[in-house]
Amino acid sequence: MDIERNVLNLGQCLQTHLEAALPDHKISESYKYAVLPAGKLFRPLLVIAMANDNGLTSDLKIDSNHAYLASAVEIHHAYTLVHDDLPCMDDDDFRRGRPSLHKKYNEWIAVLAGDGLLNISYELLTNIHSTNTVEVIKYFSESLGPKGLIHGQVLDLSEEMNESIEKLLLTHKLKTARLIQVSLVGSYLLSNPTKKRTDSEVKEVETLGEDLGIAFQLIDDLSELAESKLSQHEAAVNPWPKQSGLCTEELLQRLKRIEAVCSELKLQNTKQVIDIYYKKMKKIIDAGEDNLLENIGTTSFRESGLVPIMSFF
Amino acid sequence: MDIERNVLNLGQCLQTHLEAALPDHKISESYKYAVLPAGKLFRPLLVIAMANDNGLTSDLKIDSNHAYLASAVEIHHAYTLVHDDLPCMDDDDFRRGRPSLHKKYNEWIAVLAGDGLLNISYELLTNIHSTNTVEVIKYFSESLGPKGLIHGQVLDLSEEMNESIEKLLLTHKLKTARLIQVSLVGSYLLSNPTKKRTDSEVKEVETLGEDLGIAFQLIDDLSELAESKLSQHEAAVNPWPKQSGLCTEELLQRLKRIEAVCSELKLQNTKQVIDIYYKKMKKIIDAGEDNLLENIGTTSFRESGLVPIMSFF
Repeated sequence: MDIERNVLNLGQCLQTHLEAALPDHKISESYKYAVLPAGKLFRPLLVIAMANDNGLTSDLKIDSNHAYLASAVEIHHAYTLVHDDLPCMDDDDFRRGRPSLHKKYNEWIAVLAGDGLLNISYELLTNIHSTNTVEVIKYFSESLGPKGLIHGQVLDLSEEMNESIEKLLLTHKLKTARLIQVSLVGSYLLSNPTKKRTDSEVKEVETLGEDLGIAFQLIDDLSELAESKLSQHEAAVNPWPKQSGLCTEELLQRLKRIEAVCSELKLQNTKQVIDIYYKKMKKIIDAGEDNLLENIGTTSFRESGLVPIMSFF
Repeated sequence: MDIERNVLNLGQCLQTHLEAALPDHKISESYKYAVLPAGKLFRPLLVIAMANDNGLTSDLKIDSNHAYLASAVEIHHAYTLVHDDLPCMDDDDFRRGRPSLHKKYNEWIAVLAGDGLLNISYELLTNIHSTNTVEVIKYFSESLGPKGLIHGQVLDLSEEMNESIEKLLLTHKLKTARLIQVSLVGSYLLSNPTKKRTDSEVKEVETLGEDLGIAFQLIDDLSELAESKLSQHEAAVNPWPKQSGLCTEELLQRLKRIEAVCSELKLQNTKQVIDIYYKKMKKIIDAGEDNLLENIGTTSFRESGLVPIMSFF
């Protein structure tokens, strides 16, 4: 698939969908600030790639059901970031190189903008015309609610995440993988409206989403080691310095499964989007090899145990 | 309908529905704290009353579609209260005579509990089995999102609400009436699955919800005058002391329309629930006549212009 063209199309849909849900009032600037200009649109791209892997043939126009799902996923993602940045949460003053929403506007606007975006994500899903519309909304809500994504945020903020590698992986599974699963499974259910969540192929796609989410988060943590010498806090929450063996093993297993499922289900477009991510992270890791080695306390890349992982990228 | 029995049934459903959506983790206490023990369940009662007015005949068991809608509305209401109480919003330390959620736990738990309850309200709606399921979720999301309830919160917190009586009524319409409209229209659409939002009878129910929401809020403001001598801030945001003539006129008009529509559409159960509210407020107003007269600057109840209103109660 033509990634650039799709990013452009998805970005236009996103803007149109968002603006249609906003009031004619100056507050709408804050909602837009949280979502636009569109970034890499990684999750929406997964929605469209999976649609392409399941019969959508044109790069020229995204079918409207998948477009609504793609925007819903991106807008839901944006709400989580707005609330995550709040002073009582992660207390981040910057996001994507700009002041975070509560710094640009204020805290109550950030709370309400997050709530509003969350609502919009559901509103967009109700525009889908499919026998699977309710199934998709159900999967979306269960994956992203108190047992899903939000529980990942709870484990993170309560610092339970740092208690063990199991809790860390559980946190990644909930906080990162759930939204990726929604993108892939939701897209699959819309392309195959006679399938249900309990069907075996849907389960495979669901597992792929979990593997991807956890792999991406572990790779993200790894790339953080390459970007700079870690602060004390960063070193405490990054699993690699303390448990690089376990992390390597876990990541390797996930990467292998991702290869296998993409090959088995012939998900070449989905794999293309995944590969873009791998390439980007490889670049960061290659450029910061010295930092990386220092942060995980080894002297050579070979000794780091990371060679088999890098061969996937 | 047997109000007490229905409150009991609704409360049990609410608890069951909520608990099913929560993780097996101590954080779930905070979600429950926001919703339980169930209060007067005014909005869920409207859902069930409207169902009774449209063919539901038993007080013994609530049909599951309406039960899910009733819980969704109550849980959505609870999320708005949790976020409204936050320090950056209304900064309320108490709610229903107990510490508000962020005081009982902490702020990040309050942000996430609110987000989680918001998600659960949608999750519950996806359990509805009706040809109108998506129509109801659509109406719910549009009514409660950035153009609806949340815009009411924006007008309130930005203090635009205090600029004119028109803006005040708009705020009441969005912040209070939208959730009542969702209760009534949602219930009606589930009882009449061949009807759509654009049908004239649905529009009448929608208008009833708007009249009710605005009337209740104006009566609430009025009862506040009866309860005590207002502080400077309370007097500034309460519309009655400055514009008691306009408020009286507006409220009277709404009360008359409520009577007319309930009579025309034969909504006797809905009217029964409304009357309970009227009775409760009349009691408060009767008990605080002296405060009321002082707060609106008149010397006798007759002179206050409120007699025609009280005759509705």
